[in-house]
Order: sequence, then structure tokens, then C-alpha cells
Amino acid sequence: MTFEELVHQIKEKKSYLCIGLDTDIHKIPKFLLNADYPVFEFNKQIIDATAPFTIAYKPNVAFYESLGAAGWISLEMTIRYLREKYPQCFVIADAKRGDIGNTSRMYAAAFLENLNADAITVAPYMGADSVMPFLEPKDKWVVLLALTSNSGSDDFQMADLSPQGIKLYEQVIRVSMKWADHKKMMYVVGATKAEMLIQIRKIIPQHFLLIPGVGAQGGSLKEVSQNGLNKHCGLLVNSSRNIIYAQVTDQFAKAAGEAAAAMQSEMSGYLKDLGII
Amino acid sequence: MTFEELVHQIKEKKSYLCIGLDTDIHKIPKFLLNADYPVFEFNKQIIDATAPFTIAYKPNVAFYESLGAAGWISLEMTIRYLREKYPQCFVIADAKRGDIGNTSRMYAAAFLENLNADAITVAPYMGADSVMPFLEPKDKWVVLLALTSNSGSDDFQMADLSPQGIKLYEQVIRVSMKWADHKKMMYVVGATKAEMLIQIRKIIPQHFLLIPGVGAQGGSLKEVSQNGLNKHCGLLVNSSRNIIYAQVTDQFAKAAGEAAAAMQSEMSGYLKDLGII
Repeated sequence: MTFEELVHQIKEKKSYLCIGLDTDIHKIPKFLLNADYPVFEFNKQIIDATAPFTIAYKPNVAFYESLGAAGWISLEMTIRYLREKYPQCFVIADAKRGDIGNTSRMYAAAFLENLNADAITVAPYMGADSVMPFLEPKDKWVVLLALTSNSGSDDFQMADLSPQGIKLYEQVIRVSMKWADHKKMMYVVGATKAEMLIQIRKIIPQHFLLIPGVGAQGGSLKEVSQNGLNKHCGLLVNSSRNIIYAQVTDQFAKAAGEAAAAMQSEMSGYLKDLGII
Repeated sequence: MTFEELVHQIKEKKSYLCIGLDTDIHKIPKFLLNADYPVFEFNKQIIDATAPFTIAYKPNVAFYESLGAAGWISLEMTIRYLREKYPQCFVIADAKRGDIGNTSRMYAAAFLENLNADAITVAPYMGADSVMPFLEPKDKWVVLLALTSNSGSDDFQMADLSPQGIKLYEQVIRVSMKWADHKKMMYVVGATKAEMLIQIRKIIPQHFLLIPGVGAQGGSLKEVSQNGLNKHCGLLVNSSRNIIYAQVTDQFAKAAGEAAAAMQSEMSGYLKDLGII
């Protein structure tokens, strides 16, 4: 998906919601376990109920890999279903990969070509040649980890660099900006670090930011939106558990749809306030 | 596998060789493509030919994921084969994972429990709570990225930190040493940075280091061994392409065995020089 198409979808749906498909087979309603691929069946119903309100889905690859080959097949089926039924939705493989060049190329083939996701989350620690192969496929995106939402983000991401006088996460943004522009690269910035969005927006006013951590992890949609929205939106705010496990009953999909609609409604307000829609 | 068992194996086999199973279906001999699982068939023959000379195998997960579910099955079959026929071999899932706690826990289940590898490579960017879940399973190991062998390692790993006055990779080692001792944690240090092993050994004299980059990437086994060996060996030197693609003919396994034997022979000399065997 191109930058322009993504912005168009945001305006159409009045939403910058991304739904995290962190589908845990131990947490889905028990009656689904009779299906051949329970995780796919859960995802399918969640997608059908939430698609009017969200512009992106983000399957968390770990949850699928923990089920082995069957999990991988559920991941394939989920992305294929999205591609066929909801081609206007942006699909992010939340994989946090990154390795030497020939290996990153294999991961790029796995996620951006074979699985046909629009984007993949990538870890920056190994530097330029570990990220570049993910930038090669046309109209695909890298979502690079900058400042994450977890407590461990303080350990290294917040380290002070010398002589630059900036923090590591900021250096990651400044260096990687040279690898691709805002039409190929996004950054992960945790909602739990919403106050830092103001500083980050000074460095990358144009880029999309993928914001995890709203909801279960404690981040505020309002604060993130106030500090992070730019003139073409520039945010994808992810919610996983608060939506997909809104209710663990036979009404799970309906409840997920309602939770997504509530977030979309709030987002719509922020977009209107800024004159984006 | 415990630390003591690993050291015992090294002394028995007079080797600290790790063979990287970076098995690319486009590079294996064509006649294997008739097998149901060509990648597994290739690995099986490579393993049978090289097992006397190596103490560890390191499947590179990207190469399997690029084949989808069939690749995942080949990975499962490969590790199961090693576990059953060569239980004395140490198995490292080269996955370079790392995510927020609940997600790292899923990856730990996937690789250390379900696939039953002894160890997994982990990226440190997301900090303590992204690494800890991999340290929970008993007698399993984390191999944490410190200083990698690729050109991009200069981008962030070599950044100078203030006020510590050390580089990021060194801070990663110093901080993560508090998370686990040398019986649960190893570090990746690229063979292309062999001169830095002297400095690294001052910080972690006891730990095992996993050294990629000998061979195809240009690192020297001699230099790595001189600078990195400690009193109980403390090195696992990986070679992938130089061994598994030593010859791409129907003699590929025999050629791999010979390439592994040559490295084992050289390693045996270094171990004797230091009185380790």
C-alpha cells in the first residue's frame, strides 16, 4: 500500500486504529476450539466485526509461532482473508526481525512477499544492512523500533550518546531517516512515552508512527493524539487485548466491534479538531 | 543442556565448532528436491556427516520461515532428528527475537519448549523484560546479540555512551550480566571484530561467546581463538556456508564432513596449546 492510499483510507474511515491480532489459543472462547484452525476462525470473526472501524491489522507473529506449523498456517489464512475481503486494510506483520543482510532478505521474503503483509516491524540493533532488505519490495513498509512501550525501553533506548547529546532511540531515528523516507518507513513509539512524541515530531514531522501500548499497557489515546497527530494524521494507534478480548463469550466479535467503534469515534473527533477530515 | 555438559562435550570432541544450518532450498543439490522435505533431507545428511566434529548446530530460522509452514515443519524435523540421534549436540535457534514480555514468552515457548532448542539468539534493543522470559526455562540459554559481524554493527552497537564512556555493545553486556550468569547466557561477538575480544574478555572472562563470521564473512579462526578462548574454552565458533555448501554435488555431505573435520582439527590444536584438553 502506498502512503497516499493509507492517508486516503484514514480519511474515508475517520480512523487511525490498528488492531493487534495477538490471538492466544488459551484466551479465545472455548467453543471455537472445535474449528480446524481456531485461531483463524477467531481472527476471521474479529476482522468481520471490526473492519469498518479500523484501517490496519497487526498480527503478532509470536502468538502464531507458539503453535508451530498450524500457527503459521493460521497466520497465512488470516492475511489471505484480509487481502481478499478487505484489500483496503493495511497489514503489519509484527515480527521484530533484523539480522545480517542475507538473512534479513529471507525474512523479507517470508513476510512481505510470501505472506504478503504491507509492513513488518524491524529491530534496529544490527544497523543499516539488517534493515535495507526489508525496504526493497515495492509499496511495502518498514516499521522500525524506536522507543517501545515496555519498561525495558529504559535500559538501552534511553541511553545518552556522546558527542551527539541525544538518546539512542533518537539516534536510531536520525540515522535510519537516511535509509528511506516517510513513504517507506514508520517508527514504533510507545503510547506510554506520549510526552516524548512532541520531541520526536520535531525530528520526523512527516512520518507515520505506530503507537502500541494504549489500553492494557496504560497509554492514553487522547494524549497520544494531541502530541502525535500531524497534517495527514501520521499515526496508527494499536489496540490488541482491549478489543479482541473485550468479551470472551459467544458475543466476542460483537463486543470487539463495539470496542473498535468506540475508539474510532474518539479518533474521528481528534481528526475533526485538527481539520484533517 | 547445562554449562558442565557443554564443556564436557567440547573436551570429548576436541571441538568448539557450531554449524549454521542456513539451508537455502535454492542452493542445495537439485536431486534432493524430489524428497518430501528437501531442506530436512539436506540437513539430515549434513548432520550425519558432520556430527563427529561439531558440538552445536544453529538453524537460521529465517531460511525456514521463507518456505512458510513447510519450512517450519522442516525446522521441527531437523531439531527432532538432532534431539533423537545426537542428544549430545547443543542446538541454537538463530531467531534474534525480542519483544514485550508477554510476546517474548510466546517466542520462548515456540523455540525453547515446543521446538526444544537449547538456546535462542535474542536482540537486546527492548531491554530487560524482553529478554527475561527466555531465561525462565530450565537448562536453556539466551545468546544475546552484543557485537555482530555485519557492517551495520557500526551504526548503533559502536555508539559511545555518556557518562559511562563505553560503547553500546559493552553496555549491553554490562547490564545484561545482571540478568543471568555464564551458565544461562552467552553473547554473540562477530569474528570480524576479533581484536575486540580482548576487551570483551576483561568484562566477561567466564561466559561463552558465539562467534559468527568465520569464513564467508572474512573472520579468522586463529585470531578469534587466540583472543577469545578461556580456561573452559568459552567459544562456539560458527561456520555455515563454508561447511554446508562445501560442494554442491551428490558428494555434498562428504565434503561438509571434510570441511568440518578440518576446522575441528585446527580447533583441537588451539585447545591443546592452552591445556584445555
